[in-house]
Amino acid sequence: MAVRELLTKIGDKWTIFVVLSLDLLGGRARFSELERAVPGISQRMLSSTLKNLERDGMVIREVFPEVPPRVEYEMTTLGRSLLRPTQGLVDWAKENWETVRSSQSSYDTK
Amino acid sequence: MAVRELLTKIGDKWTIFVVLSLDLLGGRARFSELERAVPGISQRMLSSTLKNLERDGMVIREVFPEVPPRVEYEMTTLGRSLLRPTQGLVDWAKENWETVRSSQSSYDTK
Repeated sequence: MAVRELLTKIGDKWTIFVVLSLDLLGGRARFSELERAVPGISQRMLSSTLKNLERDGMVIREVFPEVPPRVEYEMTTLGRSLLRPTQGLVDWAKENWETVRSSQSSYDTK
Repeated sequence: MAVRELLTKIGDKWTIFVVLSLDLLGGRARFSELERAVPGISQRMLSSTLKNLERDGMVIREVFPEVPPRVEYEMTTLGRSLLRPTQGLVDWAKENWETVRSSQSSYDTK
């Protein structure tokens, strides 16, 4: 799998928000907690994002044999290692979105 | 425009490759040079990515009045400031894609 393919995954908006939200929730959370923590994400998108993160080794899915069964997702060391570059992108976006915004308006009125 | 909307843009695979390739080409390049530098990108995707980068203030498009007209794209200071977080993602992908790859194969054979 080329680096490019992996970049497509980690550069994905929902992957970034789920990873950062899971970290903000202390590295372990239930599906419903994550759903509340990532505004705008659909249940379907959250479950496919979590499934990809699990498949890629960035999250562990744990099922507790209760009625109804409780499912929790925990960040792995690999998942945590993604936080730094992901946060770098988020910080850049926070610092620069106003500059980008004003550039867009002058571009649109050209 | 929320930070999330901007994240969707800068987290986009082609934006990452075009920004990094433009930097590798010395910060200024023609369309055809960029097309060769980003394997797999279609002309349509490259021109829409460049248009977005121009609109967002990360690239300047310069037309030279020759026959045929020569068009060059130059990275702005804002564009260059995106290199660090973008490179952070690429470095993470390079360092970890084998770990992710092996996690995927064990997940797929579960």
